[in-house]
Parts: sequence; structure tokens; C-alpha cells
Amino acid sequence: MADQNNENDSQLFAELEEALNVEDLNRAAAQLQASHPPAIANTLEAFPWERRLQIWQLLAPQTKGAVLIELYEEVQDGLIAESVPDDLVKAVSGLDIDDLADLYKRLPKEVRTAVLQTMDEQRRQRFEAVSRYPNNTAGGLMDVDAIAVRGDATLDAVLRYLRRTRRQQGELPEHMDAVIVVDRASQYMGILSLSDLVSLAENRIVSEVMNTEIKPIPAMTSAKKVARLFEDYDLLSAPVVDEDGKLIGRITVDDVVDVIREEADHTLMSTAGLEEESDMFAPIIPSAKRRAIWLGVNLVNAFIAAWVIGQFENSIEQLVALAVLMPIVASMGGIAGTQTLTLVTRGIALDQVGPSNIGRVLRKELGVISVNALLFALTVAAMGIIWYQNINLGLVFASALTINLLNGAMAGTIIPFALHKLGIDPALAGGVVLMATTDVLGFFTFLGLATFFLL
Amino acid sequence: MADQNNENDSQLFAELEEALNVEDLNRAAAQLQASHPPAIANTLEAFPWERRLQIWQLLAPQTKGAVLIELYEEVQDGLIAESVPDDLVKAVSGLDIDDLADLYKRLPKEVRTAVLQTMDEQRRQRFEAVSRYPNNTAGGLMDVDAIAVRGDATLDAVLRYLRRTRRQQGELPEHMDAVIVVDRASQYMGILSLSDLVSLAENRIVSEVMNTEIKPIPAMTSAKKVARLFEDYDLLSAPVVDEDGKLIGRITVDDVVDVIREEADHTLMSTAGLEEESDMFAPIIPSAKRRAIWLGVNLVNAFIAAWVIGQFENSIEQLVALAVLMPIVASMGGIAGTQTLTLVTRGIALDQVGPSNIGRVLRKELGVISVNALLFALTVAAMGIIWYQNINLGLVFASALTINLLNGAMAGTIIPFALHKLGIDPALAGGVVLMATTDVLGFFTFLGLATFFLL
Repeated sequence: MADQNNENDSQLFAELEEALNVEDLNRAAAQLQASHPPAIANTLEAFPWERRLQIWQLLAPQTKGAVLIELYEEVQDGLIAESVPDDLVKAVSGLDIDDLADLYKRLPKEVRTAVLQTMDEQRRQRFEAVSRYPNNTAGGLMDVDAIAVRGDATLDAVLRYLRRTRRQQGELPEHMDAVIVVDRASQYMGILSLSDLVSLAENRIVSEVMNTEIKPIPAMTSAKKVARLFEDYDLLSAPVVDEDGKLIGRITVDDVVDVIREEADHTLMSTAGLEEESDMFAPIIPSAKRRAIWLGVNLVNAFIAAWVIGQFENSIEQLVALAVLMPIVASMGGIAGTQTLTLVTRGIALDQVGPSNIGRVLRKELGVISVNALLFALTVAAMGIIWYQNINLGLVFASALTINLLNGAMAGTIIPFALHKLGIDPALAGGVVLMATTDVLGFFTFLGLATFFLL
Repeated sequence: MADQNNENDSQLFAELEEALNVEDLNRAAAQLQASHPPAIANTLEAFPWERRLQIWQLLAPQTKGAVLIELYEEVQDGLIAESVPDDLVKAVSGLDIDDLADLYKRLPKEVRTAVLQTMDEQRRQRFEAVSRYPNNTAGGLMDVDAIAVRGDATLDAVLRYLRRTRRQQGELPEHMDAVIVVDRASQYMGILSLSDLVSLAENRIVSEVMNTEIKPIPAMTSAKKVARLFEDYDLLSAPVVDEDGKLIGRITVDDVVDVIREEADHTLMSTAGLEEESDMFAPIIPSAKRRAIWLGVNLVNAFIAAWVIGQFENSIEQLVALAVLMPIVASMGGIAGTQTLTLVTRGIALDQVGPSNIGRVLRKELGVISVNALLFALTVAAMGIIWYQNINLGLVFASALTINLLNGAMAGTIIPFALHKLGIDPALAGGVVLMATTDVLGFFTFLGLATFFLL
């Protein structure tokens, strides 16, 4: 806990770097011991692989587990591959069930078997309950250590039950802000917040004071939807039920925070064709391979645009100004389109853009861009005329720019909407498709109009 | 609470749309009454202004307050402008202090005065305490209703105190997962979780069982840093102290979730030169104005690139293939650079990229791009040769592409780092500066090499 209020993790980075440079492993180990696992994880990702492995060796087994779950998957895989099986078993055995379930399938087979063997019966049952559900569902996010009480108990009885449980088990589940109320058949009834439990009269009956407004979350609900529920209802925890309404666990807000962060990271990285789990210091060849896909897709786009230009070689030969000005038309359309695309993609993610209002969004975007088209058409017409002393060229330039700006707004609205309909992530593919549209149409419009009117 | 498990808010949208289309205001009002404020807010943003105002009129005053705080600032401003002052006073008077403080400065002056007058002494003091700090600091995020207990009390005494407080005030602070332990001088000592309070023996002394690992957050800590602390330490709430270490409030995780979401939204919208508070249906003229800035910046870039092309007009006239192929060189550099830029910008935001490892990042990025440059140089050389039956053109094309890919990787690493050093948000300005670099250098390299070697 020592570094909670450190200005930032770069201090730990600098200290470790210094200690490792002079090969003072004891000092490095002491620094690591004084640091919190998320800070160690964050710092580890800032080092190249050689250093990462050195630091990894210095960590105590339990710390390794807590660090591992905070790392990008790519970094996890690398460190797992470099670890002795026994060490890994020790590292992950102490993890929370839901964290272990996330990590489990990335572990080597022998480690998995050994981990299962270290579990007592209760832990194994809980583990199996969580593992039944995909990672990105409520079931995959949940903890299965929820404390459930019966609706017909008194608050006093609940307090006594909690004290007994604590004495017997030594601890209560982490992040417990409430107990969950169920009936005889384990069907979910409501929530009794600890805040109510400590402040209401002890002779009250649970079912009379419990909160029944919080609806249980079905286990197959998507993590994204769970996050939205926590945000909208300001929840600290929520009960999870199976298909029959039986209570099977609870989700706590700390796991939801991770979902929100990952979702945002995914969107941002997608726009550049990257994966959110990408490691900054991933080995060069696999990194190059993954990025080659994106470059390849864009090369195809660029060649299509080039082919369009190629159709007008004669025109360019006659009036070389066309080659000078054409990239302006293409790029301005791309910029205008990207703005619309970003706004509409966000709207789709927030469920604010759909078939019933896409028409209105399009009209508004075309309205906005029309105003700007007027402004920028006048600007480029003037510049074209000044530069080339050719009024007709200026007019063609301005017309093509106007058309491509409108094209950008239209493509920026329709492309993400259509991709979403087709089940393709607009954050990933939207930008590429848009640029293809605005490049091809930008070149075609400008060179086409010029050929028709100027030559 | 009725719609917590709605598949999504689009259902509410469709129902409202239908009711408003047939002017059945009663039905619309009933639908709104059955909905939760965040869902109403989200749906409101999906409607154009005309409908928004209709819906706004149908909301009860208290609901209006709860809806208002969930809206984008731009939408807030519009609805505030359209509301009767009395109505607004009613709408915001019931809000939590921290929410009210956020909204306060957006309210008309007469409403502010009236709101202050409706406050009792305690509420006004709390409001002033929160208002002393900027929105984006721990002080601005905090609630000032923290319940504090003394370290020398027994758990039993704390329980009695909480029951008495509840009886007297009717309720305890929302989202209370812990009470805060202070000494006689209100100096922060530690945290007593309700989970410990309900499960440990009643005769234990608070200071013996409290958690002292959670460090208090100074009020001027940035919201971003607060979010990182909550994430790293899986906190549900944290105490806030003033410069003298005196407890002044607590931050709850629900407010932190909003910070994380806004931060992510800000980054994403910035990359397209948009503001995160942008309203999809903002009036056309102001929207056009804001976007014109971004288009204008890009137009300047595009003209600089065009000027570079213009220097090679003679070359293009002699070999028009140059005009066909040059956009490929520019755009591939832009794509490669954007990938690096996105990765490095994320690294900077996570405090993983700094002066001590920027060199290593650059080497790795150049390594990755070198592999891809080899692959794509061969591809474009082949295509150039096939297309134009000109081996030398193919070689120049491949060389220019290689240089611009390396340029992209270099610019993508250095630009965000430099912008960050200069105090400029790399998410906002990085893309524009990068594209300027890859366009200008792409055209210059290709046309320059061609002029030198081919003509």
C-alpha cells in the first residue's frame, strides 16, 4: 500500500530501472515488495521483455498472481510461458474465483490440473459455477461467495449469522455492501444493504426492510449491459441469477470498472486496427504480422483510389494543377466524414442512434456540413483562382469539395449504421470504409468534373 | 425502476415516439413515469430538440433534476434555457450536493439565488465546501455527508450512533460501505467497513479493527488520479482531506465510474476534434462553427501538402504515373503512423511511456515497421512495375514507401510524446500533426526521388 499516493508509477519505473542497471537485485526486490500489484503490473508493461523477466523473478508467488491478472493478455502469455509450473500454481491458487476463471484457460495444461487439485470441494464448486459462463457475461464477472439470508429472519438474526460466519471463516467476502435475500428455494427476493442492517431496529424482519427495486441480473447478460446497469443505477453490487431465477452469485462494482475501462480501450484501439490487449513491447514479428493486416486493407483502398486517378491520366497531363489540388478534396471529405462517423458510432454504442432516428441524424449532419461546405468552397475557390489564375478551375475545385464534404457526412452516418446492422464493429471497420469512400469519390468527382468542364 | 432489464433504451424511445406522434401526452407521461432518469436522459438525447422540449414538459420537477445531471452539457444548457426558473429551482433542490455543485454554474443567476435560499444551514455549508474545489478534483467529486466516528469508541457505540442518526434523519448517506474514523481534531485515522462492523464482536475498539491501509485523498488530487486509485485499489469509497489532513468528505465509486466514462469519451471524441459534451442534435450553426475549426486546421495541412506537390509540377507533367501513385505513399505512411500514435498515446495516458523508455519504444516501432516496410515495398514495387512497365518507377515507389512508413513510425512515437511535454493533449492534436507529417514527407520523398532518378 506504500505507494498509493505516489505521483505516478513512473517513480517506481525509475527506481527499478536504476536498481536493475547496477544489478542491485535486493534493492529492486525491496522496491517491489513495497509496491501494490496494479502499480507493479503497470510498470512491468513499461519495460521491455528482458527487464520484465528479471522483475518477474523477483516477485513473491502470491504477488505474481495479483500482478498477472492486471496485465494485458499478451504480457500475461509471455510471463506464463517463462514461469516454472510450480510457481504458477502458487501464484494463481490464492486468486479470487472470478479472476482465476479469467486466467485459467491461458495456463498450461499441467498447471490447470495442479490448480484444480489444490482446491477444496467448496472452491472447486464455485470455480465450476463461474467457468460455466463466458468471460464477457454477468456469469463470468460474478463472485460466487455471495452471502444470502432468508426473508423471514430478523435483522438481529442476520447480525448473529454474519458474526458466526466471520468467526468460522475468518473473513467475509470482499467488497460486501449488502447481503442478498432469498426464499426457501434460493429464489432471489431482494437486497439488504449493510447500511440498513446497521441502522434499523434489530427486531425488524428482513423482507420488510429489504430493497426490492434492484432486479437480479440473468447470468447470460452481456458485460457491456451489466456496466450500463451499474452506471445508470449507481450500484455497488448486484445479484446474479440463473435461468430459473436461482441466486448464483453477485457482481461487485470493482469488476464493472474494469469492464468499462476495457470497453473504452477496445473502442480506441479498434479505430487504429489494434487490439486492446496489445503489448507495447510485443516481439517484433508477431506485432508486424498483426499490423500488416491493417496496412494491407488500406493498401487495397489506396490502390483503388489510385486506379480512379489513373482513369484521368490524360486530364492530369493536360492540366497538372489537378494533381496538386486533388488530395485536398479527398482529405477534406475524409476529415468531415470522420467527425460524423465518430459522433454516430458513439450514438450507436449508447443506443441513441437506431433505425427510427437515423434519418434525422443524417439530415442534421448534412445541415452542419452544408454550412461548412459553403464556407470552405469559397475559401478553396479563392485559393485555386489565386494560385492558378483560372476561375473555372476554382469553380470545379469548390464544387468537388462541396460534393465530397456532403459525401463524407453521408458516409459517416450510413457506414457505422450499416456495419452495426451487419454485426461488424463500427469502431473497427468504420474508419477504413469511410476513407475508401471519401478518397475514391473525392478523386473521381474532382477529376471527373475537371475533365468535363475544363478540358 | 421498471425498465432496469429492458433490452435497451431504444424501447423507451420507440414507445415515446409513438405516443408523441399521435399526441397522446398522457401515455407519454405514463411511460416516462415508469422509467429511470438515466434511461430518460439517454432517450432524450436521441430525440431532436422539438421532441426533447415536449418530453421535458412532461417530466415531474424532481425527475427533471435527476435527468438533467445525466445529460451532455450542451443538452443541459438547452433545456435549462427553455425552463421556467421556479421549475428549475424545484428540479435541482433535491439533488445530491456534488451533483448540484456540477450543475450550479450552468444555472441562470436568479435560479442560483433561489436555490441557495431553499437550503438549510447544514446543506449550504456542505454546498460551499464542495464548491470550493474545481469539478475535476477530488474535492469537486466528493460528498460531504460522510459519517465519521471516533477511534476510541466501541463497535457497539458505533452501531448505536448509526441507529440514532437513522432515527433522527430518516436516512443514512447513500452508498455507504464504511464509516470514517477520525481523532478529536477531525484528523483522518482510518476506515471502518460496515462489513467489519456487522461481523466483529461488539466490544472491540474501533481503532483496533479499522483499516489504516487506505490513505486519504487530498482534495486537490485530479479526478483522473482519483479514478486510477479506485481502479488499482478496488475501492468502493475513499476519504477526502483538506490541506491540514482534516476529513472533509468522501468519494464514492459511482462518481468515479462517471469520471472513467467521461475520460474515455473525451479521448475518443478528441481524436476527431470533437468535444465529449457534443450533442448529436445540437443546432446546426454552432455545430458547424465548432467543426469548422478542425476542418480549417486540416485545410491548412492539405494546402501545405499541395504546395509540396506543386513544386514538382514539371515532373508530374513528364511522368503522370507519379500523380497516380503518390497518394498511396502518403496514405500508407499515415496509417502506419496512426497505429504507432494510438499505442504511444495510450502508453502516455497510462504513464507507461516517458523519457526513460521512449527510445526503446521508438526502436521497437521502427523494428515492427521495418518488417512491414520490406513486405509492402516488394508489393508496391511489383504493382508499380506491372502497372507501368517501368522498373525504375517501381524501385522509386518502393523506396519512397519504405521511407514514409519509417517516417510514420517515428512521427507516431515522437509527436504524442512531444505534445504531452508541451502540455497539449496528444489525443486531440496528435492525429492532425501526424497526418501533416506523413502527407508532406510522403509526397516530397516520392516526387523528389522520382525527379532525381527517373527524369
